Amino acid sequence: MAGVTRYWEDYEIGAVFELGAKTMTKEEIVDFASKYDPQPFHIDEEAAKASFFGGLVASGWHTCSVCMRLMVDNYLSPGSSLGSPGLDEIRWLKPVRAGDTISARIVIVDKKPSRSKPQIGTVFNRYEVHNQKGELVMTMKGIGMIARRPAS
Amino acid sequence: MAGVTRYWEDYEIGAVFELGAKTMTKEEIVDFASKYDPQPFHIDEEAAKASFFGGLVASGWHTCSVCMRLMVDNYLSPGSSLGSPGLDEIRWLKPVRAGDTISARIVIVDKKPSRSKPQIGTVFNRYEVHNQKGELVMTMKGIGMIARRPAS
Repeated sequence: MAGVTRYWEDYEIGAVFELGAKTMTKEEIVDFASKYDPQPFHIDEEAAKASFFGGLVASGWHTCSVCMRLMVDNYLSPGSSLGSPGLDEIRWLKPVRAGDTISARIVIVDKKPSRSKPQIGTVFNRYEVHNQKGELVMTMKGIGMIARRPAS
Repeated sequence: MAGVTRYWEDYEIGAVFELGAKTMTKEEIVDFASKYDPQPFHIDEEAAKASFFGGLVASGWHTCSVCMRLMVDNYLSPGSSLGSPGLDEIRWLKPVRAGDTISARIVIVDKKPSRSKPQIGTVFNRYEVHNQKGELVMTMKGIGMIARRPAS
């Protein structure tokens, strides 16, 4: 984020942040799934062809994790980002296939100051992840804890 | 699952499935986060000590992914599991630290037959993940698409 800290006050409802894109290679799909989601349609090209997916697809958790990486590289403000208590929803809408390029964006949908901690606020966002055909492949409703601008 | 297919009809509301346990090593935490969530408190032990976590912690996505692996190894019935449309909630309640052993279970909370596809049903579950101290570190509300028992 080039050194400029984005505080809770700086988030505007409706703002859109483009997180960039990532091509999902067969090797990365198989590597992730071999460790964390070794179902045949994620790790074995031949078995995947015979499955209801009809070909090798990324684990949904892999797509989430790639989205997190894009968020770290192109969105999070290290000086104010205080982690996340979780997500309110994940929807895997379409398979992400080997060779697909997915691009992600974040839309700010709401924000609230903390009641108990005056130095912190919450930002609610919606992730939208599309493939190279423009198809929406995943959405998530995220929650970020963000530092408020220090009193000067 | 030792060859026995568990169909949608076999899931009982209130049933509990133990998914086993996994120790989160420093090496695995850093390896996952270096690829997918390279924030200082996930990849750099010294920086993590100075962070608001006070030490190296696993990416929340890493904990989710390990939980998926336990699910594949100890829960999913390959002959009937038809994937998932997503999750309704994730809550990262406490940090998962290097050296922690997490254990996961699934509780079946609801089930519905598909309206449009008579050969499929949905199972709604709750994941509970505890650490070795018995602290609840993560919960998730999951959704599974499961094949119905074929007519004989």
